Amino acid sequence: MLPIARSGPGGASFMEAFFTATSAICVTGLVVVDTPTYWTPFGQAVILALIQIGGFGVMSFATVLGILLARRLGLTARIMSSTETKNPGYGDMRRVLLRILATTLLIETVVAAALALRFFAGYGYGPGQAVWHGVFHAVSAFNNAGFALYTLSIMDFAADPWVNLPIVVAVVLGGLGFPVLYQLRREWRRPRRWSMNTRIVLFATVVLLGAGTVFLCAVEWSNPATLGPMRADEKLMAGFFQSTIARTAGFNSIDISAMHPVSWLGLDLLMLIGGGPAGTAGGLKVTTVAVLGFIAWTEITGGTAVHVLGKRLSRSVQRQAITVVVLALGAVTTATMALMLLHEDIGLDRILFETISAFATVGLSTGITADLSPAAQGVLIALMFLGRLGPITVATAMAARPRKALYELPKERPLIG
Amino acid sequence: MLPIARSGPGGASFMEAFFTATSAICVTGLVVVDTPTYWTPFGQAVILALIQIGGFGVMSFATVLGILLARRLGLTARIMSSTETKNPGYGDMRRVLLRILATTLLIETVVAAALALRFFAGYGYGPGQAVWHGVFHAVSAFNNAGFALYTLSIMDFAADPWVNLPIVVAVVLGGLGFPVLYQLRREWRRPRRWSMNTRIVLFATVVLLGAGTVFLCAVEWSNPATLGPMRADEKLMAGFFQSTIARTAGFNSIDISAMHPVSWLGLDLLMLIGGGPAGTAGGLKVTTVAVLGFIAWTEITGGTAVHVLGKRLSRSVQRQAITVVVLALGAVTTATMALMLLHEDIGLDRILFETISAFATVGLSTGITADLSPAAQGVLIALMFLGRLGPITVATAMAARPRKALYELPKERPLIG
Ligand SMILES: [K+]
Ligand SMILES: [K+]
Repeated sequence: MLPIARSGPGGASFMEAFFTATSAICVTGLVVVDTPTYWTPFGQAVILALIQIGGFGVMSFATVLGILLARRLGLTARIMSSTETKNPGYGDMRRVLLRILATTLLIETVVAAALALRFFAGYGYGPGQAVWHGVFHAVSAFNNAGFALYTLSIMDFAADPWVNLPIVVAVVLGGLGFPVLYQLRREWRRPRRWSMNTRIVLFATVVLLGAGTVFLCAVEWSNPATLGPMRADEKLMAGFFQSTIARTAGFNSIDISAMHPVSWLGLDLLMLIGGGPAGTAGGLKVTTVAVLGFIAWTEITGGTAVHVLGKRLSRSVQRQAITVVVLALGAVTTATMALMLLHEDIGLDRILFETISAFATVGLSTGITADLSPAAQGVLIALMFLGRLGPITVATAMAARPRKALYELPKERPLIG
Repeated sequence: MLPIARSGPGGASFMEAFFTATSAICVTGLVVVDTPTYWTPFGQAVILALIQIGGFGVMSFATVLGILLARRLGLTARIMSSTETKNPGYGDMRRVLLRILATTLLIETVVAAALALRFFAGYGYGPGQAVWHGVFHAVSAFNNAGFALYTLSIMDFAADPWVNLPIVVAVVLGGLGFPVLYQLRREWRRPRRWSMNTRIVLFATVVLLGAGTVFLCAVEWSNPATLGPMRADEKLMAGFFQSTIARTAGFNSIDISAMHPVSWLGLDLLMLIGGGPAGTAGGLKVTTVAVLGFIAWTEITGGTAVHVLGKRLSRSVQRQAITVVVLALGAVTTATMALMLLHEDIGLDRILFETISAFATVGLSTGITADLSPAAQGVLIALMFLGRLGPITVATAMAARPRKALYELPKERPLIG
C-alpha cells in the first residue's frame, strides 16, 4: 500500500499491507495493525472498497455458480425463487448481478442511515464524520467483514441498542445469502414455496442465535471482565450480539481475550459452522452442517433415505457436504499444528480460535494476531483465502462435473464403529 | 473394592475403585491411583481379570453382532473368512467364541513367555515375579488396556527392544480385530480373497504407524525431556512404540506430559482414529475414518459411486460412518467443555487429550487424571463407557434395523460450501 494510506511516518510494511488487504478482500476482519489509528482516511477507504468488492464478488460468484450448476444438472434446483429458474439465459445472469447489487446497496444505505443518525444525535459526531462512520460500519457489517473504526471494535457501544441493532440486522441479512434474501423478498408470504435451502438457512440461523446467546450468557454472566459489570438486559443484548457476530462478522462488543476458554470453544463451533451459502458469511455453511445432521438423524431413527422437509436429500449433496467438512477440518488442523510449532508459548485454545476465525473469515481474535511471526501470519493469509474460496469452489467443482456410471460394482460393507 | 485390594491402610475410596474398575473393564488404562504401589497383588489380579473380561467381551460382542447382522442382511458380508459365513447357525456362534478365546490365549501366552524370559534373564527378576509381570503386561497389551505394574508405565524399558517388541506385537494384533486375525490365519497366502474390512484395517495400520512415527520423531527429536537424550536408533524405536501405542493401548515409554503440545494434538488424532473393528482397540475405528476418506476421494476425483478395491461401498455404511463420527465428536466436545468449566486452570490441550484418551479407551494422559475433581472423573467414566460401547452399539443397531422404502420422495439439493 502507498505511504499515503498510512497515518504515521513512512509506508506500511509489505506484510502489514498484504495481511490487511487479504483480510479485507476475504471479508475476514483479522488485523495486525489498528485500523483507526494506523491507516489514514484514504487507507480506510481502500479497505472499505476491498470489503465491498470482496463481499459482492463472493456473493455473485456463488449465486451464479449455483444457477449455472442447476441448469447443467437439468434440475429446477431452486437456487432462486421457483418461478425464476425455469430456463435462465445469460441475459438473466446480468439481471441477477444487478439484483444482488441493488439488494446490497439498499440494505447498506438503510443501515448506514440508521447508524449515522445515532452517531450524530447520540454521540455528537459532526455530520460528515457521522455519515462516514455509518457507511463504513454498514458496509463492513453487511459484507460480514468486521473491520471497525474503533480500536476496541464496538465495545464502547455494547450497551447501546441503537448501534447494536442495525449492525446485527446487516450482519444477519448478509449472512443469510442472496438466494434466501431474494426468495424472502418475493415470497415471504408463501412459506410453503420456500426452497429447502431457504428453510434450512432460516431455521439454522434462529437455532444458532438462540443457542449461542444462551451459551455465552451462561458462561460469561458473572465474568467481571466481560458481562459481569453490565445490567441483566445489557448482558442479554451483548450475549446475543456476540453470538450473532461470531457466526461470521468479527465485530466484538465484549472483550474476547478476557472470555472463559469454554466460550472460545463455543465460539469456535459457531464460527466454523458460519452462515448461509452464497452470502457474505464464511465457514462450512449451515446447510453443510445441517446435511450431516440430517444423515445422522436418519440413521438414528432408521430411515431408508435422507428425507428433509418432504424431499429426499440428493446423495451427491451428502457426499459433497462430507468432503467439504473433511477438507476443512484437515486445513484447520494442519494450520493449527503449524502455528503451535511456530509459537510454542501460545496455548491450543487461542491458536485454534485464531485458525478457525481465519478459515471461517470471521475475524474475531483473542488478541494474538498482531504478535504472530510473519510465517504464522502467512499461514493465516493462506487460511483466509482457502476458507473464502475453498468450500464453494470445491463444492461447485464437484457438483458441476459430468459423471456417468458406466457400470456398477458389487457392494461390500466393512465394519463400522 | 475390598480393603484387601489396597496396599495401604483402609479400603480404597468408592471413586478410586469405581474409576479403576471402569478403566479396566473398558480396557482404557487411565488411572487415578498408582497401580503398582496402591493396589495389592490381589487388587492387581482383579484389575487383570476385569481387563481380560472386558477385552474378550468387546471382541466377542462385536464379532457376533457382525455375523448376526450379515445373516440378517442376507449378505455374505465376509465378517469372517469368505468360506465361513455361507450359513452360520447358532452352533457356529459357540465355535466362533471358542476361536476368539483360543486366539486370545495363544497370543497372550507367547507374548507373556517372551516378556517373562526377558524380565528373568535381563533384569534379574525371580521366576515367579518374571512370570507375573510377563502375564500381566501381555494381557494388558493384547487387550489394549495399557495398565502397567510400573509407576512410570514402561519408560524404564524405552531402550529395550526385547520388552518393546513383544508388547507392540500384542497391541497391534489385538488392535487389528478378530475378523482380521482370523482371516490372516486362514488365508494369509491368498490376499486376493481378503475382505474389504481386512484390507482397510491392514493398510490403515501400516499408514498410521508410519505417519505417527515420522511425526513424533520429527517433533520430539531434540526435546530434552523426551527423545532428546536417546541414541538415534532408540529415538526411532521410542517414536515407533509410542505411535503404535497411542492408537489405543495406553502404555508410554516416553514422558507424555513433557511432550510438545503439537505432539499431543498428533496423538489426539491417532487416538481418535483408533484400531480395527471387532478387536480390543477403541476409537472411531480405522474403517470408519477410511470410509469418510473414500467418500472425499470419490468426490474430488469425480466418481459416481464410492468404489473401494473393486467393490462399491454400501451407501448405508457411508451414512453409518458419518453418524458414528458426528456422535463421537459431539460427545468429546461436550465432555471437553464440561471439564474446562470444572477445571479452569487446565489448558484446552491437556483436557482435549484426556477426553479423547478416555473416549477412545486409550489411557494415555498428560498427567492430570488423578488431580481431577470427582465430577470431572465422573465425566471421564461416562466417556469411557460411551466410547467403549457407543460406536459399535450405534453402528450395529442402525445396520440391524429392517428398513423398507415404501415410497421415494422427489430429491432436492441445498447449496453446500
Ligand atoms: K468477517
Ligand atoms: K487402552
